[in-house]
Amino acid sequence: MSAFGFTLKATDGAARTGAVHTPRGDIRTPAFMPVGTAATVKALYMDQVRGAGADVILGNTYHLMLRPGAEEVHALGGLHKFANWPHPILTDSGGFQVMSLTSLRKMTEEGVNFASHIDGSRHMLTPERSIEIQCLLGSDIQMQLDECTPFPATHVEAEKSMELSLRWAKRSRAAFETQEHRTEGQALFGIVQGSTYPDLRARSIEGLTNIGFEGYSIGGLAVGEGQEMMLKVLDTTTPLLPKDRPRYLMGVGTPDDLVESVRRGVDMFDCVMPTRNGRHGLAFTRYGKVNLKNARHAKDHRPIDETSDCPAARDYSRAYLHHLIKSGEMLGSMLVSWINIAYYQSLMAGMRDAIADGRFDAFAAQFKADQAANDIAAL
Amino acid sequence: MSAFGFTLKATDGAARTGAVHTPRGDIRTPAFMPVGTAATVKALYMDQVRGAGADVILGNTYHLMLRPGAEEVHALGGLHKFANWPHPILTDSGGFQVMSLTSLRKMTEEGVNFASHIDGSRHMLTPERSIEIQCLLGSDIQMQLDECTPFPATHVEAEKSMELSLRWAKRSRAAFETQEHRTEGQALFGIVQGSTYPDLRARSIEGLTNIGFEGYSIGGLAVGEGQEMMLKVLDTTTPLLPKDRPRYLMGVGTPDDLVESVRRGVDMFDCVMPTRNGRHGLAFTRYGKVNLKNARHAKDHRPIDETSDCPAARDYSRAYLHHLIKSGEMLGSMLVSWINIAYYQSLMAGMRDAIADGRFDAFAAQFKADQAANDIAAL
Repeated sequence: MSAFGFTLKATDGAARTGAVHTPRGDIRTPAFMPVGTAATVKALYMDQVRGAGADVILGNTYHLMLRPGAEEVHALGGLHKFANWPHPILTDSGGFQVMSLTSLRKMTEEGVNFASHIDGSRHMLTPERSIEIQCLLGSDIQMQLDECTPFPATHVEAEKSMELSLRWAKRSRAAFETQEHRTEGQALFGIVQGSTYPDLRARSIEGLTNIGFEGYSIGGLAVGEGQEMMLKVLDTTTPLLPKDRPRYLMGVGTPDDLVESVRRGVDMFDCVMPTRNGRHGLAFTRYGKVNLKNARHAKDHRPIDETSDCPAARDYSRAYLHHLIKSGEMLGSMLVSWINIAYYQSLMAGMRDAIADGRFDAFAAQFKADQAANDIAAL
Repeated sequence: MSAFGFTLKATDGAARTGAVHTPRGDIRTPAFMPVGTAATVKALYMDQVRGAGADVILGNTYHLMLRPGAEEVHALGGLHKFANWPHPILTDSGGFQVMSLTSLRKMTEEGVNFASHIDGSRHMLTPERSIEIQCLLGSDIQMQLDECTPFPATHVEAEKSMELSLRWAKRSRAAFETQEHRTEGQALFGIVQGSTYPDLRARSIEGLTNIGFEGYSIGGLAVGEGQEMMLKVLDTTTPLLPKDRPRYLMGVGTPDDLVESVRRGVDMFDCVMPTRNGRHGLAFTRYGKVNLKNARHAKDHRPIDETSDCPAARDYSRAYLHHLIKSGEMLGSMLVSWINIAYYQSLMAGMRDAIADGRFDAFAAQFKADQAANDIAAL
């Protein structure tokens, strides 16, 4: 009941389906986690996110520590209550956003000192403080602070960076074990680094598994290396990861990225793509991407997908969505974000069923045919 | 079934309650019409608008004629279908927005020639074209083209402007009678002008009732004259209007404006105030206005109104709403707009019940006491 765990239900090649167990409920895997950066999945109500089939959302430690603040969220009853999401929440460590969103920062062995992108105030993020923040938020699945090695990196650079992340992994684990605000059943994931170098990835995994984590994240991908290289890294990385722990590929990706990564044994994903693109009128559908800004939709009576369970995909004409997006109306962003989150969740559900039935390859082939059809016929 | 009509159920002093009958359903009066400018009530789903108790929404002819275009909406099945709102829709004539939103315009006896604020394209809006557009949209309750006399205006200016509106009223009525896209049960309202001059308002009403309309709008108010002057104009205007036709006060107003105007015999209202202010974090509540940007809400666990039927008012803490608004998150605009539309609808429902029970004065006194309490205690 109150313990964290992971159960594999079926495998099909390297693809796996099962469930991550948390005190707040199960996360069916493979799982896509909508990104709820600042305690909101942008432009969506939480009941829409849940209704679309999401078992878990991601919160960004960097954003929440700055606004409203970790202690403030804790005083308000924790992130779940604050955001009206009683189901599992995974948080990142804040490290990635510190490196991508702040300018005046200094990284040392101790951690990262940085200036807030909101008001310029100075903050220090260490492995220990990251864990403290995540425990104050009440996160069910927490991440160690790591350095997301930039791409490209030389072997020397990648090695140095990976070793720093390993040292921070050890400190994170120690901090997690003694954190006063931790509650039973919360989990900590280690993060595999090593850039595109198989030997470094292997050493990273060896180091992390020696420390021991409830799950393993694969970091340092989707940072410009391209899909081909990313999948090549997964090919040599996932086989080395413990089979009995969930594997989370951070910040990925397109629908095709998800299918190809599940094929290689990944269990969990997060990405801003469905919501960020949704806000700007790009819909992800069974038949590929639909850019609703395009004038070709102006007179189109058809909904995005009349067979969808999602009202946004089923009950509104493309002409109306086009009009809303062109007019800069908030409802356009709301509807297309909803369409995208629902599509991503239905894709994951389709993969879970296919793996359970031992027909993942056929599912993936049909997925690719459908997506390609639209690239020709509908865009 | 398919005829337009108006039934008075009860009066209490000058206040009235009843229903406007349209082929698409009844509009319980006094009614507040949420503004759906560009075929969307900004930041809200139509089922939220309906669920809040709205029987009718307003569409802006000016915006819709420019984007997506009246003929385009007609080809897509009309505005109701386009916007997923199968219930009554009232449209304005476009005249007010032409005067307030465009710059390069020329008004003649014929109509107004203007440049679109979207792309600079030139358009001509005449009484006949306004009716044609409203019929193409499929509007249930249409407005004559008029000139909204600016405030202040001299008696001479106001008289000249009022007389132009009267001539346009006559042309609008004639155009409406012969409009090919008109369907049974659609209604046309004349618009009373005359600025703050009782004699001109009286002559306007005489002219309009001689032509004959299904309802009468009171225009040229809420344009800077202040509440006291507005109510003074209503005091001398509403008694002259036919008792058996609905009366619509255009572009009004604050909750207190609504109560005071209902007291004086007004049946219908529209205003952008609840949605526009909602988008920026100002909530209208039973206990007055709550500015959610204010830091005093940052640690407040309480919802806006725990007794409300509206989930947005009941299920989210003020601290969370404050956070969303401060962070510029769309969900903040969505929730506060919803809170406001729900509050406006509940205020109208309260007035309808009070009039039916013959206790409008007591209702209004309690309303004022509640609103004042918050101005002291909660802001």
